[in-house]
Amino acid sequence: MFFELTQSTKTSVKAFRCSFLDFIEDPFYVSTAESVRYIADGMLVIEKGKVKELGTYENLKNKYSKIPVTFYPDMTIVPGFIDTHIHFPQMEIIASYGEQLLEWLNKYTFPTEGKFKDKAYAQKVAAVFLDELLRNGTTTTLVFAAVYPESVEAFFEEASRRNLRAIAGKVMMDRHAPDFLRDTAQTSYLQSKQLIQKWHKKGRLLYAVTPRFAITSTDEQLRLAGKLLQEFPDVYLHTHLSENVDEVAWVRELFPDCESYLNVYDRAGLVGEKSVFAHGVHLSDEEFRRLSAAKSAIAFCPTSNLFLGSGLFKLEQAKSKEYPVKVGLGTDIGGGTSFSLLQTASEAYKVAQLQRQKLSPFQALFLATLGGARALSLEDKIGNFDAGKEADFIVVNMRSTPLMAFRNREATPTSLEELVDRVFSLVMLGDDRAISATYIMGELAYEVKR
Amino acid sequence: MFFELTQSTKTSVKAFRCSFLDFIEDPFYVSTAESVRYIADGMLVIEKGKVKELGTYENLKNKYSKIPVTFYPDMTIVPGFIDTHIHFPQMEIIASYGEQLLEWLNKYTFPTEGKFKDKAYAQKVAAVFLDELLRNGTTTTLVFAAVYPESVEAFFEEASRRNLRAIAGKVMMDRHAPDFLRDTAQTSYLQSKQLIQKWHKKGRLLYAVTPRFAITSTDEQLRLAGKLLQEFPDVYLHTHLSENVDEVAWVRELFPDCESYLNVYDRAGLVGEKSVFAHGVHLSDEEFRRLSAAKSAIAFCPTSNLFLGSGLFKLEQAKSKEYPVKVGLGTDIGGGTSFSLLQTASEAYKVAQLQRQKLSPFQALFLATLGGARALSLEDKIGNFDAGKEADFIVVNMRSTPLMAFRNREATPTSLEELVDRVFSLVMLGDDRAISATYIMGELAYEVKR
Repeated sequence: MFFELTQSTKTSVKAFRCSFLDFIEDPFYVSTAESVRYIADGMLVIEKGKVKELGTYENLKNKYSKIPVTFYPDMTIVPGFIDTHIHFPQMEIIASYGEQLLEWLNKYTFPTEGKFKDKAYAQKVAAVFLDELLRNGTTTTLVFAAVYPESVEAFFEEASRRNLRAIAGKVMMDRHAPDFLRDTAQTSYLQSKQLIQKWHKKGRLLYAVTPRFAITSTDEQLRLAGKLLQEFPDVYLHTHLSENVDEVAWVRELFPDCESYLNVYDRAGLVGEKSVFAHGVHLSDEEFRRLSAAKSAIAFCPTSNLFLGSGLFKLEQAKSKEYPVKVGLGTDIGGGTSFSLLQTASEAYKVAQLQRQKLSPFQALFLATLGGARALSLEDKIGNFDAGKEADFIVVNMRSTPLMAFRNREATPTSLEELVDRVFSLVMLGDDRAISATYIMGELAYEVKR
Repeated sequence: MFFELTQSTKTSVKAFRCSFLDFIEDPFYVSTAESVRYIADGMLVIEKGKVKELGTYENLKNKYSKIPVTFYPDMTIVPGFIDTHIHFPQMEIIASYGEQLLEWLNKYTFPTEGKFKDKAYAQKVAAVFLDELLRNGTTTTLVFAAVYPESVEAFFEEASRRNLRAIAGKVMMDRHAPDFLRDTAQTSYLQSKQLIQKWHKKGRLLYAVTPRFAITSTDEQLRLAGKLLQEFPDVYLHTHLSENVDEVAWVRELFPDCESYLNVYDRAGLVGEKSVFAHGVHLSDEEFRRLSAAKSAIAFCPTSNLFLGSGLFKLEQAKSKEYPVKVGLGTDIGGGTSFSLLQTASEAYKVAQLQRQKLSPFQALFLATLGGARALSLEDKIGNFDAGKEADFIVVNMRSTPLMAFRNREATPTSLEELVDRVFSLVMLGDDRAISATYIMGELAYEVKR
């Protein structure tokens, strides 16, 4: 009897003992005390893959004395990272040489994406891609597939196999691209619709209507994208916006009657609460205001913005108090140069510094976790350790390289100042090696080789 | 008799079989064919720590059939990296939060450097510092020690123990710094002189007269630095120049009679062929011209320039054909964020991209090797595999992470295009893990754990 009880408890309830760090509010707007939750010796209790309770080990150990506890001494558990903009078919062209956006698309992106009509190929890449994300501590992604429905099927199948909360969509692109990569307004509408019906809300998966960007979609295609959003009000809209100076100029030429780049999407009904716009490097004040009013989100992709020479995202303006815009971090693989949201946050700090702005370590980590969840309207499901949320989390080793071990000599921070310093060193120096383990819905999905 | 011959040959002559990549000329000024030397299956023969011969394995294998050959299949051997600007006492403040240059010095640098009066402490840090450099493939450095002669002694002792070619100097700093860090013009002159007499050209070690920068030296101290250069014409001058906007403005205030920042150093006799100026982010055309005429060098420190928000170095202007200036790469630890010259070169590419300039992978690797050697006037001793040079080299694994292994699926490049792509991926994605082994004067000094 007792044995049976323990068995069933084991399968449904379990706990982790560690130090814990997450966010309960946005550190861009409120104080550290109001936004950061740090428990030096904590216990996270999980039931059926969801957070049941987080507290100090001292307070919870007796209440849960009968359940199995996994102990990670000298580590810190944080919520799984959320990547709000990434292209899975571009994994193999990461670090391709010498171009800015428009030339880069023609020279590297388009030829590569052509391969993703082959579902078996797409599936193979999707598997490596998702494994690499887990190795980097990223548990949720908003993903561009390719123009082919097969590429979306492949991605969702692999994400589903790993029980990941993921959002993806078929690229819609009916002009200014090679023949083999073009759909039509009508086929893109129909194919997207079928994919939505098949995959949206299937398990943890969600769908995003995904026109590549204004340049590669006709008015008619954008209109039909808007129609999809009306027919399926809870799917996402995912596209690019104002990344590169030449791109912005071309959009102005193509849509002379629109007052801004954002307005091209707006008049097609694509600017709403579940819209995520990648980049937004060259937005006007008016565009920021409109994004704020619409409660849309921006995916800030610093490694990509530097690598492609796109420019410096105005984070301070996006996070202003007057016109706040939701912001998440995006790696933008393959324009970005790292799968790691730590390395992405490190470049975000540098982009801020070049504009004489400060990005605090807590703000950086917020963007990679709860900030990303909010950008994806998923803050009721992921992003921190509030009770009821899905237990996607990572075990972080802040002494994972010889340099970090030297830099962070003492074991656990004992003051807020030490914690700030430790987290900052993680953001600036950490990479995939800092991720000791990744858990999905409370189950081990990746563990570093020792 | 034969045995004895083999024995003695073993100790004095040995060889490495691998693919080899180095530079025979500057790829900023001449074509790839004229600048890059790549041997897909090569043999490097070393005698008494120096390069005896480099050629194809096919051509050399019979000539050297009796000597021991170390074979590194699927690797590439390149010259050891050269870091032209780094502060060894700042290792522990790497990734300190939130400041630009002048505040950063006061808040982090000065308090930390105070610890280096204790020679035992300095020696401990110097040992970790040099080991970390070797782990990152850096075999030669131009180093700021602290103001205390003890810190220079400690550094040189540890560098000597590792048989490294290294250049270092005592910081000269007689104003605008805390009491405990200030010398006087006179003591800085005398202490530097003693250190030069003791260490300059001792084995592979060399000395650099090292005023921190114009702000922390009086006219008299700068004048005495110039006097040292006159008394010891083959020592180096190593200082900072035009890193940060506020710094430049302050220099203008402090030296109202100088027409430029560079001119402050120039009139003290500090601008010559063996002068290395770190940063040079905000140089005027006139200053570039003067550096070119004087054959001085700039240490370009991109991770630091981004991290401290200093600005974007004008590499294209420095490498112009009209007024060419010698340029090396510097990590500038602790203002920089990585010991790896690969990661430094990656940020250099991004700095160029933000200015719509291209930095080719060969140019990047040149800066880290022969370019650095030229910046340090050491091209007769290190920087490539020309016969007679000291055999400092690294064994590079271009598939050292799961991502790089996926990205670079085939084994050895078979075309120039493939080689360019492979080297670029190394520069953008590589880190300490790409360094499989580091050799100093032909002897194994570091090897990655498998």
